[in-house]
Amino acid sequence: MSIEPIPTTTHTRTPITLTDAEIFSAHDGGKLEISLSSPLETKRDLSIAYTPGVAQVSRTIRDAPDAARAYTWASRLVAVVSDGTAVLGLGDIGASASLPVMEGKSALFRRFGGLNSIPLVLETTDVDEIVETLVRLRSSFGAVNLEDVSAPRCFELEAKLIEALDMPVMHDDQHGTAVVALAALLNAARIVERDLASLRVVISGAGAAGIAVAEILLRSGVDDVVLLDSRGILHADRPGLTGVKADYAARTNPRGITGGIDEALDGADVFIGVSSGTVPEETIARMSDDAIVFALSNPDPEVHPDIASRHARVVATGRSDFPNQINNVLAFPGIFRGALDADARRITPEMKIAAARAIAGIVGEDLAPDHIVPSPLDDRVAPAVAAAVMAAVERAGDELSPED
Amino acid sequence: MSIEPIPTTTHTRTPITLTDAEIFSAHDGGKLEISLSSPLETKRDLSIAYTPGVAQVSRTIRDAPDAARAYTWASRLVAVVSDGTAVLGLGDIGASASLPVMEGKSALFRRFGGLNSIPLVLETTDVDEIVETLVRLRSSFGAVNLEDVSAPRCFELEAKLIEALDMPVMHDDQHGTAVVALAALLNAARIVERDLASLRVVISGAGAAGIAVAEILLRSGVDDVVLLDSRGILHADRPGLTGVKADYAARTNPRGITGGIDEALDGADVFIGVSSGTVPEETIARMSDDAIVFALSNPDPEVHPDIASRHARVVATGRSDFPNQINNVLAFPGIFRGALDADARRITPEMKIAAARAIAGIVGEDLAPDHIVPSPLDDRVAPAVAAAVMAAVERAGDELSPED
Repeated sequence: MSIEPIPTTTHTRTPITLTDAEIFSAHDGGKLEISLSSPLETKRDLSIAYTPGVAQVSRTIRDAPDAARAYTWASRLVAVVSDGTAVLGLGDIGASASLPVMEGKSALFRRFGGLNSIPLVLETTDVDEIVETLVRLRSSFGAVNLEDVSAPRCFELEAKLIEALDMPVMHDDQHGTAVVALAALLNAARIVERDLASLRVVISGAGAAGIAVAEILLRSGVDDVVLLDSRGILHADRPGLTGVKADYAARTNPRGITGGIDEALDGADVFIGVSSGTVPEETIARMSDDAIVFALSNPDPEVHPDIASRHARVVATGRSDFPNQINNVLAFPGIFRGALDADARRITPEMKIAAARAIAGIVGEDLAPDHIVPSPLDDRVAPAVAAAVMAAVERAGDELSPED
Repeated sequence: MSIEPIPTTTHTRTPITLTDAEIFSAHDGGKLEISLSSPLETKRDLSIAYTPGVAQVSRTIRDAPDAARAYTWASRLVAVVSDGTAVLGLGDIGASASLPVMEGKSALFRRFGGLNSIPLVLETTDVDEIVETLVRLRSSFGAVNLEDVSAPRCFELEAKLIEALDMPVMHDDQHGTAVVALAALLNAARIVERDLASLRVVISGAGAAGIAVAEILLRSGVDDVVLLDSRGILHADRPGLTGVKADYAARTNPRGITGGIDEALDGADVFIGVSSGTVPEETIARMSDDAIVFALSNPDPEVHPDIASRHARVVATGRSDFPNQINNVLAFPGIFRGALDADARRITPEMKIAAARAIAGIVGEDLAPDHIVPSPLDDRVAPAVAAAVMAAVERAGDELSPED
């Protein structure tokens, strides 16, 4: 197979070109506003929403704490929390510089999940201090979407928050990405007529997203998952591995292969790139027939989708200007909405897999190599995800129920 | 002067009667909502508000931190912060039960000040932990309205927050009350044709509100202020006084009087009640001719306004069903709005006094014994207060300016 120069024009869609002027104009004053759910126009309105009427509500919550779920906004309010250590492709830019991203996330929760959400950015990067801060504030919100926290701290932080807070907590860079990647893979596998269990999957990147993608694939029946970090393939005998990487080195790579991306992709069926690296065309060309390539690095995919398409049957990226955009917004609004609607205290692996199946299901009969996931703007997605997540919570409840 | 039974019908206004059903219905799901300041309907909108467009804004803030003031909501966002230790008349009911009050406060900031505001309630009552928590979150908001924090902790907490946070911080139970009380007293003094400096003022209650009222009156030229706590008059020789009370015992009570409310009110011109106590008619009757009575305890004034009116020329309460309602909502929305519009880093005594004069000024030619303050719903108030606060900031800047 001959390797030719990267084409720049074979793809017909036009990328969205944004000017600084329109970006900054849209951000002027921030992207969120507070509004009132009841009017404050008359003395009577004031007497109800504030003194003396509000005292009756406070007294009720004092005497029956669960009443706070009904009579405050907190129980359905998602805090989007970041310490600004791993923001987009920008890295550790700090709390304040991360805030526009978190405001955007809160806006997406509102727009797609119908949920109120506030951004809370933290000046500390100490995991225990972040946990302590959120524990002190826990009556102020009903769920935590962790965002843009660097690996491996994010694993410890999420685990500690799940233990410390009696509410749904999810690090979206891990699980939002994993859910949408699984959704895309479920549909890509339909295109190539393969079972998940038969696929050899290579994940490039063993950070937040890579680890979570590996986890959800293992739980979804994929047996042959190979993870790579910047030093190459994770395998049980690789010296120097600790923590999460050591765990996943032991749980993945059943054939015990070693080496780098060339060795990993040799005969592989699926490439999922969640690193900021690049993969040469020659390496993609080593993959099996009917290969599936998800080059999710943003803004520059690990391999240009036009190049990947020469060797792969299905190609997806994180970009809005190519087909098959793997975008977390397909997942997190519906996942949190479903978890809160179901009064769930945790977001379980079963809820995430249910979410992925719901996203994949929306595509339905429109399935095609260039249409394996719905548009991020498809308003059917979040309600379907929420319903699937609620159903998963109910199934889990049934399993736990003593009547069964 | 004969003392007759408390009349119950001389006042013609009808109190507002609220049913539980309408109160709880108005609180269902909470009183606040998040809305978007820009649409999220197209791929282009998504690309601007979230990736990739938002990266340009984050990068700009990383390189020039002040840009966060323009391109996030934080710099004009008021955090309404409470630990739930002194909520309305309910006392220490905890964070979650205090939240409806804080949501109401945030709603009032939005409605009257045009400011975004979020409630943050804290599960800790340790002053240093509260400071630490807000310092960690300081990039998330632009001002702090402390609310319903018990005395004397509130004095230490406010002082430490002012030092630790480079933004406007104000404990409204102290200063909001003080500003509106001063506004009312400025107009009441016009009614009785007296200068503030000539008035003998008695303040019953040496908690958050009482101390702040004393402070603002001393700064406004009132020389003869007498403070009482539950044990009686504060004076320099009273044994056992510490902290804030000792400070104010030294700074008030220039005639060195001792005793209780009877001795304090003997010949006094002004009574300001900010305790939860009661004052008998006989005691009010000891005041001078043309007495001024502000019985601000809620929901039960220290003396019924109809009783007080027999002996006083001007009577005010905190209640909406009597004339002259002394309500903090006249002050805090405009004070914070003005401070944020002026980019002030502190809320100074001069700004508070300017706010009081602006509130008093709104009454103008409509001044009457039963109309010494504007209605809490008067939409002219907050803009006038904000403008006066801004002007005070500018005057302070001029004074500090090396050119002057």
